[in-house]
Amino acid sequence: SCDFPKNESARESPISGFETRRILRDSAREKNIFVHGKIDDQEAVVILEKTPIRQDTLPEMFKTSTLRLEMRNDIYSTYNLQPPSHLNEIKTTVICPATEKHVKKYLRQETFLIEESGDDYRNITLPYISSKSFSVQWVHNILEKRAEADRIVFEDPDAHVGFVLLPDFKWDQKQLDDLYLIAIVHRRDLKSLRSLTSEDLPLLRNIREKGQEAIQERYGVPACKLRAFLHYQPSYYHLHVHFTSLDYEAPGCGVERAHLLSDVIQNLEADSAYYWSRSLSFPLRADDALLLKFREAGKL
Amino acid sequence: SCDFPKNESARESPISGFETRRILRDSAREKNIFVHGKIDDQEAVVILEKTPIRQDTLPEMFKTSTLRLEMRNDIYSTYNLQPPSHLNEIKTTVICPATEKHVKKYLRQETFLIEESGDDYRNITLPYISSKSFSVQWVHNILEKRAEADRIVFEDPDAHVGFVLLPDFKWDQKQLDDLYLIAIVHRRDLKSLRSLTSEDLPLLRNIREKGQEAIQERYGVPACKLRAFLHYQPSYYHLHVHFTSLDYEAPGCGVERAHLLSDVIQNLEADSAYYWSRSLSFPLRADDALLLKFREAGKL
Repeated sequence: SCDFPKNESARESPISGFETRRILRDSAREKNIFVHGKIDDQEAVVILEKTPIRQDTLPEMFKTSTLRLEMRNDIYSTYNLQPPSHLNEIKTTVICPATEKHVKKYLRQETFLIEESGDDYRNITLPYISSKSFSVQWVHNILEKRAEADRIVFEDPDAHVGFVLLPDFKWDQKQLDDLYLIAIVHRRDLKSLRSLTSEDLPLLRNIREKGQEAIQERYGVPACKLRAFLHYQPSYYHLHVHFTSLDYEAPGCGVERAHLLSDVIQNLEADSAYYWSRSLSFPLRADDALLLKFREAGKL
Repeated sequence: SCDFPKNESARESPISGFETRRILRDSAREKNIFVHGKIDDQEAVVILEKTPIRQDTLPEMFKTSTLRLEMRNDIYSTYNLQPPSHLNEIKTTVICPATEKHVKKYLRQETFLIEESGDDYRNITLPYISSKSFSVQWVHNILEKRAEADRIVFEDPDAHVGFVLLPDFKWDQKQLDDLYLIAIVHRRDLKSLRSLTSEDLPLLRNIREKGQEAIQERYGVPACKLRAFLHYQPSYYHLHVHFTSLDYEAPGCGVERAHLLSDVIQNLEADSAYYWSRSLSFPLRADDALLLKFREAGKL
């Protein structure tokens, strides 16, 4: 069984008898690994991630570690350092019993770059979005103050150019390093970048100006330290704009999915039909139902 | 002094007496820390980075680690795991004696987002680039086969639409996960995105088509698994295009610096003066001389 007492050595611990079946995902950059296997005949997923190096542990670490020389060249030398175990823990998460859904969630999914023409949007993507009628009830709850009202950082209540600004869930608001806010428009007829024309320029300019002002006022972060962008595809089809700290390499700010608000404004200024007519590239995971639609249409 | 024998315990090791002065930079995501301090009265920089979790060490790690329960909720539980020291090393780099230049190199630099209009480019950026006459001799060496000839993956020798494709230095070519190649054009009159007009469309389309083909042929990676983009500002002013694996979150593929090749082609098809006239946003480090030029011009 997956049950086990609180403090114990590995010999009696849940993972001491863990049988690895396969690696679902790992990251050399982030020093983590997601493993699927069994604990006492039950399916389990174990996630290991090394912990950040804490400044306050450095003096003890420097004093008490063992050091093995790897390479020396002029003023440069490299070593393997073995710190005492208590200064070098690995965060471990166990999911047991795990379902097929857990395994699928953590399995690294291949992604494919789709090049969606304006016609592809109208013939494939839009019908798909409409048929799924993805719920944006939670967005309406925010706009109507039925949820998260205390999290709102700024609001412009205007029905046409207004929006609500609040911290993204990924940001714990404890430090400005990874500042992440979302501006959600009050209008409900704008699904995404594809919905925008030059008529929406007052809305977009308003979000840029008042969003920047509000962030400057509340957090002291000026506009030149911010990255303001939209996603395409977005994760929900109610128009919203992301504001992140420029120094923060936020997930989802890659060129294949993000569109700078300042570029969107300029493109619409020059051509009202820009986002109606252009091919837009974006990545889709192999298990995304929209990918299947593109495949069925012979577009991949 | 910084000199020291080869294998030794920390007590006699170069870093056991390391006096920390300040943290230059750290990353909770990448589990590293860059520290400036002193070793025996000499300036030193010490870089610590936790090592990736290796699959082949998992069985021993699961068997021999100590586990401390943190939280349990239904099927989820989290622990702090203390592996034996030899399975959990920290890569350590020592630079000693370190100069002010080393310290500056590793010090986290604030970045600022610049919005460069077409006129700003011609009045500020272009004169700056020209005055510095950044050497692209190493690029010419590649194009003339005086260097790195054995690294070339593909070449189209045409003087107008031709280019050389070779692996980026960041890619060790040992796995396709972080595939990274660069296409360098034979033409020498194109500095960057700002130089491009619709007359260059045959060149850009040629790079897209033949670059994709060559990567498919050599590495078996199809176009829908690739991210092809240009940087603005580029790190050198001789036109080049980046090809990276779509699944690889390569540094420099953020929306604030990268421009998808497919977008560049479409923009020039619609407006030959697109990159001559548009405002382009890009980040500059606080110590970048170009930032000072923008500041002097009252643009920041």
